[in-house]
Amino acid sequence: MTTIQQPTGDNDRFERGLALLKEIGGPDGPAVLESLGDIAPDLGRITVEFGYGDILSRPGLTLRERELTTVGALAALGHAAPQLRWHINGALNVGCTRTEIVEVLIHASVYAGFPVALNGLTAAKEVFAARTDLPEEPAPEPAPTGARFERGTAALSEIDGEAGEQVVAALQDIAPDFARLLVEFSFGDIYARPGLDLKTREMVTVAMCTALGAAPQLGVHIHGLLNVGGSEQEVVEVLIQMAGYAGFPAALNGISVARTVFAERRSHRNADA
Amino acid sequence: MTTIQQPTGDNDRFERGLALLKEIGGPDGPAVLESLGDIAPDLGRITVEFGYGDILSRPGLTLRERELTTVGALAALGHAAPQLRWHINGALNVGCTRTEIVEVLIHASVYAGFPVALNGLTAAKEVFAARTDLPEEPAPEPAPTGARFERGTAALSEIDGEAGEQVVAALQDIAPDFARLLVEFSFGDIYARPGLDLKTREMVTVAMCTALGAAPQLGVHIHGLLNVGGSEQEVVEVLIQMAGYAGFPAALNGISVARTVFAERRSHRNADA
Amino acid sequence: MTTIQQPTGDNDRFERGLALLKEIGGPDGPAVLESLGDIAPDLGRITVEFGYGDILSRPGLTLRERELTTVGALAALGHAAPQLRWHINGALNVGCTRTEIVEVLIHASVYAGFPVALNGLTAAKEVFAARTDLPEEPAPEPAPTGARFERGTAALSEIDGEAGEQVVAALQDIAPDFARLLVEFSFGDIYARPGLDLKTREMVTVAMCTALGAAPQLGVHIHGLLNVGGSEQEVVEVLIQMAGYAGFPAALNGISVARTVFAERRSHRNADA
Repeated sequence: MTTIQQPTGDNDRFERGLALLKEIGGPDGPAVLESLGDIAPDLGRITVEFGYGDILSRPGLTLRERELTTVGALAALGHAAPQLRWHINGALNVGCTRTEIVEVLIHASVYAGFPVALNGLTAAKEVFAARTDLPEEPAPEPAPTGARFERGTAALSEIDGEAGEQVVAALQDIAPDFARLLVEFSFGDIYARPGLDLKTREMVTVAMCTALGAAPQLGVHIHGLLNVGGSEQEVVEVLIQMAGYAGFPAALNGISVARTVFAERRSHRNADA
Repeated sequence: MTTIQQPTGDNDRFERGLALLKEIGGPDGPAVLESLGDIAPDLGRITVEFGYGDILSRPGLTLRERELTTVGALAALGHAAPQLRWHINGALNVGCTRTEIVEVLIHASVYAGFPVALNGLTAAKEVFAARTDLPEEPAPEPAPTGARFERGTAALSEIDGEAGEQVVAALQDIAPDFARLLVEFSFGDIYARPGLDLKTREMVTVAMCTALGAAPQLGVHIHGLLNVGGSEQEVVEVLIQMAGYAGFPAALNGISVARTVFAERRSHRNADA
Repeated sequence: MTTIQQPTGDNDRFERGLALLKEIGGPDGPAVLESLGDIAPDLGRITVEFGYGDILSRPGLTLRERELTTVGALAALGHAAPQLRWHINGALNVGCTRTEIVEVLIHASVYAGFPVALNGLTAAKEVFAARTDLPEEPAPEPAPTGARFERGTAALSEIDGEAGEQVVAALQDIAPDFARLLVEFSFGDIYARPGLDLKTREMVTVAMCTALGAAPQLGVHIHGLLNVGGSEQEVVEVLIQMAGYAGFPAALNGISVARTVFAERRSHRNADA
């Protein structure tokens, strides 16, 4: 990392960031930072200090969760192929399985469309093929089949509760077929798949909806993450992390949605008390 | 298609989807699905079952309309180059002309900017060049010239009616030049071009605004599609189709806009009665 | 430019556009327009007439400002690599320094995330390396270090005034750490960097927020641009320019935000009077 400008600053952000960057990316550091040494050495330093020293070093999420949400968001944005490959590698380095990474990318089909999922999996295939150090993994359990609507309805109810049911109900007058497809495909096919637990699926969903600016769905799935065992702190951490990958506007708009959801749940609890 | 996982499920979604996929893509099937056989065989199956068996098989739009709206949306998103090429090929396979495809991509300049149009046409050029089986097409009629503002005003009024006029009127206080450019370029130059009928232009516009999350413009152009002969069912079909290419949030947010537009028109009709 | 269709029309838009295109792009013209001569010759003509003859020829912004805002917006969108390289070249041709271009791309990390900044800088590196005609530039001044929060607070207050302080205040209940990161990184690290003046930074920010559809932040930074010496006309010009690079919906939605901001400031002034 000799070409990354060293900090002259006031704290250990650079050292902390560089150590984490090497834990995630491996000892060599990202080629893109090295290659910018002659044109924008500052940006290498800032990426290390801010991206890794400030954001990714925060407590509140595991590194595995940070890498899987990042892979989901970069895939959904669709325009950051080098970074997507880097973080697929990073996810492997911090202990994510190939199955989990594949599941995150398949999950992206729901929130950003099939092209995103297909292109993400093509990237994953390349990254996996370049690694000779990956342990054997058990074959993934088969995905469930049959009774898609019933399974989807149960999953929707478990995950998104009332908010999810309202989405489906609101479609009945105008596009009832689409309500059925939403339940069958999104919840019956995808959410019900083995290989990635529901809480991580909701974290990834929150990350993707934040990166894409899909505010109504972000609200539903912040509820969802809280419903399947996530905490308000975890929600906020996912949103903060998106500042680095999709920009501060995306993160700030996500925080606005979270504030509303947190208040709704508080007022609901008070009403119950 | 030997590496695509066969379904174990409850219906003929896979068979119906695979037949349609071959009708659109040709007998070989998409290389990307084949190439994922070793990493995510499920996604190949899901793409066939959901994308082709559930969505693209639906009645309500012709295959030509489905492929042209998909080409427009993928071009507008800008991040799905392999899928854009695949569906340009698909559009040719289901009977669209090269002129129609070129017009869809030129049309995208209005809704997603010139880079999108230029990069889409570069992709089309490559796809067309690789095909030796395309019939001769008559040279496109020349685009109209002169009187751009008058022609644009007439087209705006025909297509978008009051909603379009309100957009222009709202610009008068703050950016009157921009109102003129909007009328001259978008409606005088682009909408008035031969080679793609108005109804298909509006379908493609609805698809692009949905994929991009441009809600106010989506509202104007759902009115537009209904004004030039489209039905509510066709609007809903275009929106549902976008779930597969831009994700469910994009489609759901589009449905919300459509609900408002349909209600406005109903209340307007009742007021007239 | 022999393959670009010549106009048959009513004015000198083509000649004016072509002259400007050559001033920005160099005498050869963009290869993409040439290469489309056989598939969509109209689009070459339209790009010259509308993009260069109508939009980029407008008064109200310098060509340097037009190119820097375009570079920022194309980088932020992330899906227009050929056009980003073309306009980095164009920025150099109209007198922007390499330092200014690098700063615009580093600035994009705040509004669109680090992947966008890193990929933009990779493009800039390639463009710079291919030019043998660039003058020596003084090494950029070192970025400030230490006292990031204090410097950031001062910058935020200078640039965004009350609107910026409200953004930070609104985070205190839900994500106080994120408020600190926003001040330290966005304003303490990035806005405070030498190499690009504040007014140009705010112009680029307005361009990027418009292209990305980040409406709340666009409002804050239209205030910001006006606070650091920009005029309402300059705001409107940046928004109009985005029609060509991100599409008319993005520009129209930006105009709506500008209308609200202009009215707020007028009513505030009246209240003060």
